[in-house]
Amino acid sequence: MARTDLDFSPAPPATERGRRTRRKLLDAATAEFGERGFHDASIASITRRAGVALGSFYTYFGSKEAIFRDLVRDLSDGVRRAAAERLAEREMSSLDTEQAALAAFLAFAREHSEIYRIIDESEFVDPESYRAHYEKTAERILGRLRTGAASGQLRGDLEEAHAWAIMGMNVFLGLRYAVWSDGENAADDAERAAQAANSILAKGIGPRTPD
Amino acid sequence: MARTDLDFSPAPPATERGRRTRRKLLDAATAEFGERGFHDASIASITRRAGVALGSFYTYFGSKEAIFRDLVRDLSDGVRRAAAERLAEREMSSLDTEQAALAAFLAFAREHSEIYRIIDESEFVDPESYRAHYEKTAERILGRLRTGAASGQLRGDLEEAHAWAIMGMNVFLGLRYAVWSDGENAADDAERAAQAANSILAKGIGPRTPD
Repeated sequence: MARTDLDFSPAPPATERGRRTRRKLLDAATAEFGERGFHDASIASITRRAGVALGSFYTYFGSKEAIFRDLVRDLSDGVRRAAAERLAEREMSSLDTEQAALAAFLAFAREHSEIYRIIDESEFVDPESYRAHYEKTAERILGRLRTGAASGQLRGDLEEAHAWAIMGMNVFLGLRYAVWSDGENAADDAERAAQAANSILAKGIGPRTPD
Repeated sequence: MARTDLDFSPAPPATERGRRTRRKLLDAATAEFGERGFHDASIASITRRAGVALGSFYTYFGSKEAIFRDLVRDLSDGVRRAAAERLAEREMSSLDTEQAALAAFLAFAREHSEIYRIIDESEFVDPESYRAHYEKTAERILGRLRTGAASGQLRGDLEEAHAWAIMGMNVFLGLRYAVWSDGENAADDAERAAQAANSILAKGIGPRTPD
């Protein structure tokens, strides 16, 4: 099902009104693809959800494939921004930075519970976007690890594989404790996930507790 | 696309010959679903790959949905067995146990490179099997962590969230260093992944190196 016939979307709108309409269509597409999956989703239903005329769709997106791809990039960018905003709030140690990045991701995943389904479906609908999402996320983590190593706060031998390991921890903690959490325990669950990840990164799972 | 119309398969074959034919069909289904995805896969193509008469298919499986579900369970069980065999080879410390379990998983993923695609697609084709695969895998990891904690080799406060974190590390290291590794560097890549995971579990990512 790898697709090679992806259309491209027109250039992004230049006006504020255009940007708002494009945003409405992307949000409607999040709900549509999240609920119905790529194959059953329709452009007519996306425009209906957005309250936008069917014909306007093509001002912003080239096709159903094109809006799906743009949406994966948009969600991927949302993950990036959520972490960046949290990390900009205050100066943090390297370990606190990783904990804050995970907390921001868990909050984003709770608010956008469709994100797992949409990014996971991109493995089949648009494999390049799927791979790009994880490669970029791992690169950002690796950048933070290198910053921490340079300042002596983290081990000097951290490399790409450590970044992928940390990303995997975060993705699966998000799946279990944000997406699959029942509403009642959501806050406790997020806290438990953040503590678990942080304690592994701080000291591993062995019996010694250096702090 | 969550399916509720899954047929069930007949009881497993009682004869050795029957078990061999069922195995051939599952292996053919691995190739078929792995290459073409669930929607484009066909029972006719699975039986052709297996060298089995089309009509015989229904002796073993109720439908395309049923063989897909049985295949997810079969692959999930293959992951379990690959680790169990490796761990039975010799007595190991708790940290060596986790490293050996990851090495066994990476080897299994390299040999069965379709496993990611098939298990990932089960999120859409058969969500219950998808969830069961990860819940069972996390339970096994938690069991090992508790054994290690009981013998004083691991921290006493390890719980479900730590197991999910370790599972996520393993899944993403497998994606990057087994499935997406190019053939030439596969052995180096697996080694790098195993070292990264092990060093995080042994001592975290901080600058102190207690060993």
